[in-house]
Amino acid sequence: MYNAEIISIGNELLIGKTVNTNATWIARKLTLLGFNVKRIVTVGDIIEDIVSALRESISREAKVIITTGGLGPTFDDKTSEALAVALRKPWVINFEALQMVKEKYYKMGLKLTPHRVKMAKMPEGSRPLPNSIGTAPGILIKEKECLIISLPGVPKEMKAIFKEHVEPVLKNIGPHLCFSEKTITVKGIPESSLAPVLDLVMKNVSKVYIKSHPRGAEGVKPVIELHITSSGKNMEEAKYYIEKASDILLKLIREKFQKFQIE
Amino acid sequence: MYNAEIISIGNELLIGKTVNTNATWIARKLTLLGFNVKRIVTVGDIIEDIVSALRESISREAKVIITTGGLGPTFDDKTSEALAVALRKPWVINFEALQMVKEKYYKMGLKLTPHRVKMAKMPEGSRPLPNSIGTAPGILIKEKECLIISLPGVPKEMKAIFKEHVEPVLKNIGPHLCFSEKTITVKGIPESSLAPVLDLVMKNVSKVYIKSHPRGAEGVKPVIELHITSSGKNMEEAKYYIEKASDILLKLIREKFQKFQIE
Repeated sequence: MYNAEIISIGNELLIGKTVNTNATWIARKLTLLGFNVKRIVTVGDIIEDIVSALRESISREAKVIITTGGLGPTFDDKTSEALAVALRKPWVINFEALQMVKEKYYKMGLKLTPHRVKMAKMPEGSRPLPNSIGTAPGILIKEKECLIISLPGVPKEMKAIFKEHVEPVLKNIGPHLCFSEKTITVKGIPESSLAPVLDLVMKNVSKVYIKSHPRGAEGVKPVIELHITSSGKNMEEAKYYIEKASDILLKLIREKFQKFQIE
Repeated sequence: MYNAEIISIGNELLIGKTVNTNATWIARKLTLLGFNVKRIVTVGDIIEDIVSALRESISREAKVIITTGGLGPTFDDKTSEALAVALRKPWVINFEALQMVKEKYYKMGLKLTPHRVKMAKMPEGSRPLPNSIGTAPGILIKEKECLIISLPGVPKEMKAIFKEHVEPVLKNIGPHLCFSEKTITVKGIPESSLAPVLDLVMKNVSKVYIKSHPRGAEGVKPVIELHITSSGKNMEEAKYYIEKASDILLKLIREKFQKFQIE
């Protein structure tokens, strides 16, 4: 199992100002790359909280930890410093990163200031990841068997660095598993009546996971979205398990119930 | 400080299928009730993972822990059982809860089945919270100084139970603090140039927190949303700090910069 964890950093997430769409986007990407996202943790802009979240993820032996947020120029951008503390490494100016930051501001006709230089400070031994949209570079650093990647919180910047510099690295080290999925919507059967059917299908096809999502009202107008997922060495294998489970599921529903609709 | 933590449970969140809007909604509610949301943790439908998330939150001495998801009738609804394990209490049928579940299905013309009875199983000593929208009751249980509340993952059901049964309880035990906020949008000044100004404002008014959110592009067209927040014993106090900080902020911006727009 190639476990991955996501750490989202930012008070705006904890006060309910911002919906954490970054974590969902990264979780989806990691899942499609074959990783098993084990935990997503959100903490505020407090060094000790970021440090403990990082150390906890490392101690759970995640292969990959991706953090978002806290890489900018303001007082409460503390991720890089926290990363240095968590790894017990000096927090130093990375000259490659400094060059990146310098060039960005040079193009805007602006000089380096302490707040701008801060964006080039990283734990010793980090590899800066170029930010093609904004100014703060991402950070990539290895801690024993764990790859830690810190990305900015601005979604456009996070996604650009992920696609350009993180995805190629993860494809390389990745578990080389293919993830497949299928959604079947069942109308007219309450979730609690479908539950024993799901048990049976998963007993027959242990390689799939079926999650039911109630979309209607259990009693009056039940609408259940069944999301079937599987991973395999290749796409054919993953799809094979899903089709097998899906066939058994539909057969059982037809046998056990009379009034329903399937979409 | 009245710390609160949120634990979101569900594989759909970890595979990036579902955006965790529940956590944002609850975080906002808790913040407005004066609680300090310290951490949001998402784990999958695995007993050990739910148990460790619960025990970690308890060990961090959260006053309130709110969990969502995993209360339904299917095989992977494991929150209630995990809660019993985490608290080292027997997982038993709660007869008040059983009555609630029974009545729901009775109205639909359906009998109790093992999967339906499961929704009435709770750690010994729990108080079931009526679910006016769906079938699975919420769970409220106290562990030493910590109040643990488990709510369903279906947003409509979660919100109904929160408003009808959780909010009144939290208002009662709550920190009786008022939260206030104000947003100022500054166009034309890069975030890194505003950073030293924010440092100054927060040095002058230590009771506020100012978070800058870049919405444009740092170089070409900077748009910075400044979100000023504060808590006080009453709304007047909270608003006073915010207006004080806001005045100093605007004064400093006018002194230091020439071209900008404020909205």
